[in-house]
Amino acid sequence: MSAYSKTNVGHENRTELHDALSLTGAEISINNLPAGAGVPFVHAHKENEEIYGVISGKGKVVLDGETIPLEEGDWIRIAPEAKRQFSASSDSSFTFVCIQVKADSLSSYTASDAVIF
Amino acid sequence: MSAYSKTNVGHENRTELHDALSLTGAEISINNLPAGAGVPFVHAHKENEEIYGVISGKGKVVLDGETIPLEEGDWIRIAPEAKRQFSASSDSSFTFVCIQVKADSLSSYTASDAVIF
Repeated sequence: MSAYSKTNVGHENRTELHDALSLTGAEISINNLPAGAGVPFVHAHKENEEIYGVISGKGKVVLDGETIPLEEGDWIRIAPEAKRQFSASSDSSFTFVCIQVKADSLSSYTASDAVIF
Repeated sequence: MSAYSKTNVGHENRTELHDALSLTGAEISINNLPAGAGVPFVHAHKENEEIYGVISGKGKVVLDGETIPLEEGDWIRIAPEAKRQFSASSDSSFTFVCIQVKADSLSSYTASDAVIF
């Protein structure tokens, strides 16, 4: 596999990176919801942990029935089995990244996985 | 483990999320380099794939000796063994997210891992 792959993401409703970048350890999507819009279904996962980061705007997630407001700079980890549904605020668009990884898959990281030159 | 954990990231030089959010499948950092600044070392990884996404500003990565310019909206996957060093442009700050995951760890994702309600 080549040393790197690169793409550029604009302001599409949803851009998925797994196939575009030949990812092997994650699926990553960049999502833009216009004001008042929401993901039209509730979902959970079988084995994947999800981490969402808010790039700009405001919105919320309803998570197992609890409403959690979200704004720029917020990052949230959601356990696989939790039921989630994201939406933008009525007066703000909502841009966020969603990172999907297999729960308990990380063995080591940063200092313990890095080689410094 | 609880259904979710949440934090807010400001404009610190570097914020690491693994411990803050009790992540089990990734380490994620949000990095802000001022204009002209750079990571002071070259590094690679033993087993982790890294994905970098540019949130704002301009910079570059030198990757196995090749210089790759980076700007807002760029996303790049880097293989574990590739030698990398990131820096901001001389005239622009550089804000990026770095996602570290174990290469080849993702078994299924999105449609194949989701449960819809």
